[in-house]
Amino acid sequence: MTAVVRTIPAATEWVQRQRAEGKSIGLVPTMGALHEGHLSLVRRARQTCGRVIASVFINPLQFGPGEDYQRYPRDFDRDLSLLEREQVDAVFHPETAEIYPSPPLISVCAGNLGETLCGASRPGHFNGVTTVVAKLFHIIPADRAFFGQKDAQQLAVIRSMVRDLNFPITIEACPTVREPDGLAMSSRNAYLSPGERSNATILYRALQRAREMIQSGTRDAPNVEAKMREMIQSAPGAELDYARVVDRDTLAGLREIDKEVLVAVAVQFGKTRLIDNMIVAP
Amino acid sequence: MTAVVRTIPAATEWVQRQRAEGKSIGLVPTMGALHEGHLSLVRRARQTCGRVIASVFINPLQFGPGEDYQRYPRDFDRDLSLLEREQVDAVFHPETAEIYPSPPLISVCAGNLGETLCGASRPGHFNGVTTVVAKLFHIIPADRAFFGQKDAQQLAVIRSMVRDLNFPITIEACPTVREPDGLAMSSRNAYLSPGERSNATILYRALQRAREMIQSGTRDAPNVEAKMREMIQSAPGAELDYARVVDRDTLAGLREIDKEVLVAVAVQFGKTRLIDNMIVAP
Repeated sequence: MTAVVRTIPAATEWVQRQRAEGKSIGLVPTMGALHEGHLSLVRRARQTCGRVIASVFINPLQFGPGEDYQRYPRDFDRDLSLLEREQVDAVFHPETAEIYPSPPLISVCAGNLGETLCGASRPGHFNGVTTVVAKLFHIIPADRAFFGQKDAQQLAVIRSMVRDLNFPITIEACPTVREPDGLAMSSRNAYLSPGERSNATILYRALQRAREMIQSGTRDAPNVEAKMREMIQSAPGAELDYARVVDRDTLAGLREIDKEVLVAVAVQFGKTRLIDNMIVAP
Repeated sequence: MTAVVRTIPAATEWVQRQRAEGKSIGLVPTMGALHEGHLSLVRRARQTCGRVIASVFINPLQFGPGEDYQRYPRDFDRDLSLLEREQVDAVFHPETAEIYPSPPLISVCAGNLGETLCGASRPGHFNGVTTVVAKLFHIIPADRAFFGQKDAQQLAVIRSMVRDLNFPITIEACPTVREPDGLAMSSRNAYLSPGERSNATILYRALQRAREMIQSGTRDAPNVEAKMREMIQSAPGAELDYARVVDRDTLAGLREIDKEVLVAVAVQFGKTRLIDNMIVAP
C-alpha cells in the first residue's frame, strides 16, 4: 500500500512513524511526469533504505518567466500508479500553497555554481532548486535522497548545499537512463515533434564523440568543446546553448583534461530545451 | 558536568545520545563574550528543555570588511565557567575551520529582510547570520533555539528563515536585559570609553520617548522617528545610523501606527556600533 500524503504535518508524521519502527528513509524528489529514470531512482532507494517516499511537486520557483511551468506535464494518477507498481511506501504530493503559503523572504542561494552552464540561460533556476530541496529535506528528514546524474549541475549544486550547510543527509546519484537510440530520458522529451525527436540524438552522439576524443588522448578541453559545437550546430533544428568540459564538482571551465571531467551539453529544439552529460576519465 | 564539544560529529553524537534518553533539546547560539542577556537565554532554555547546549562561535561570515571580527572579545574560559555555573549540559565550541573548511559555495540569503535597518550599513551581515544558523540547526537538531529580542532584526530574519525553509525547530525570543541605567546589555559595550558609556543611554531614552508618544496617542510614524533622531543627534559623540518605526515581522516602514510596531535604533559611538529596540503597542 502506497500512502498519499498531501500536507506538511502529515509528511512529517509519516516520517516519525517510520523512524519509530526503526526504519531508514529514502527520499526521491520528483516533479512528476515520471519515466524510467525516476523509477530507477526509486528502485535504488528500495535497495538501500527501509522505507521509500517519493515527492511529486512541480516547483514554480525553479521556472523562469516564459519557461514551461504552465505546460509542464501533469498526470498524478499515472505517476501514482507507476510508484505503486514500484512499491513506494509513500508519495508526498502537496498543493503549491502548502509549500509556498506566501513568497519566501529567505531562500537558499546557489551562488556561482548556479550561474554557469544551465544557470546562464536560466537565471534564478538553481536558487529555486536549492530552496525547494532544502524545504523538502526539512519536511521529510530522510537518511538518503536520490537524484539522477542526468541533471548533473543540479546534482553538483545539491551536493554542495548539503556539504556547505551541513544537512544531515546522504545524496546518492543514479546513472542516466537512456532510450535505445541513446537519448537521455526526460519528462520534456514529450514536447518533441517526431522530427525533433529523431534529431535529438545529437546530444548523445556529441557526448560519445567527446568521450572518444578524451579516451584516445585529447587533453585540450576547448578542442573537445569545439568538436561538440560543430556536431550540434550541423544537426537540423538544433540550437546550441552550450557544449562544455568542466570540473565535476566546481563546474569551472578547464583548459587541460588531467582528471575525471564533466562533459555537458544543452540544446534547444524549437521550444524544448534538452540537456545531457557524461563523466569521462582521461 | 558541562561537556565541551569541538567537532561536528561530536556535536551530532551528543544530540543523538540525549534523544536516545528521550530528552528534548534547547540550543542557545552565541558568539561568546557572554553577559546577563545570554545567561537569561540559557535559564529560559533550562526551564523548557530537558537538555541545553550553548554554542560559542564567532562567525566570520557575518562581519564585513573593516568591522570588528579581529578585535571581537574572546575569552572561552570565562564563557565556559559562566555556562557551567548555569548548569548548561554541553557547549559547542568549534574552530573556524571546522565550520568553514572552505568558503561556502551555497548560502542562505536573507533577501530584503536583511537589507533594511542594520543591513543597509552592514551589507551581507544577515546572509552570514542565516548561513551559520542554518548550519548550526543541522549540526545540532534541537527542538528549540533561543535568541534575544535585543537583536530584533536577526530574530525577524531567523523566524522567517525557519518558516520559509520549514526548519523543524521552534524559535523562542527572550526579553532584552538592561543595565540599571537602561543600556541594553551587549558584548560590544566593552568597547565604550567611560564617556561614551555614559552617553550611550541615549538609545534607551529615545526608545522610551517613542513609546510614550505612541502610548499617548501619536499615530504618525515619521513624527516619532523625527523625535528619536533629534534626541540622538543632540547626544554628545552619538552618530545616528537609523531610528525607525517598522512592521515587527516584515521590518517594512510605516506611516500610520495602527498595530504593535518595532521601534529600533542604531547609533555609532566612535568605533562602536550599538543597537536597541522596543516592541510597542498603540
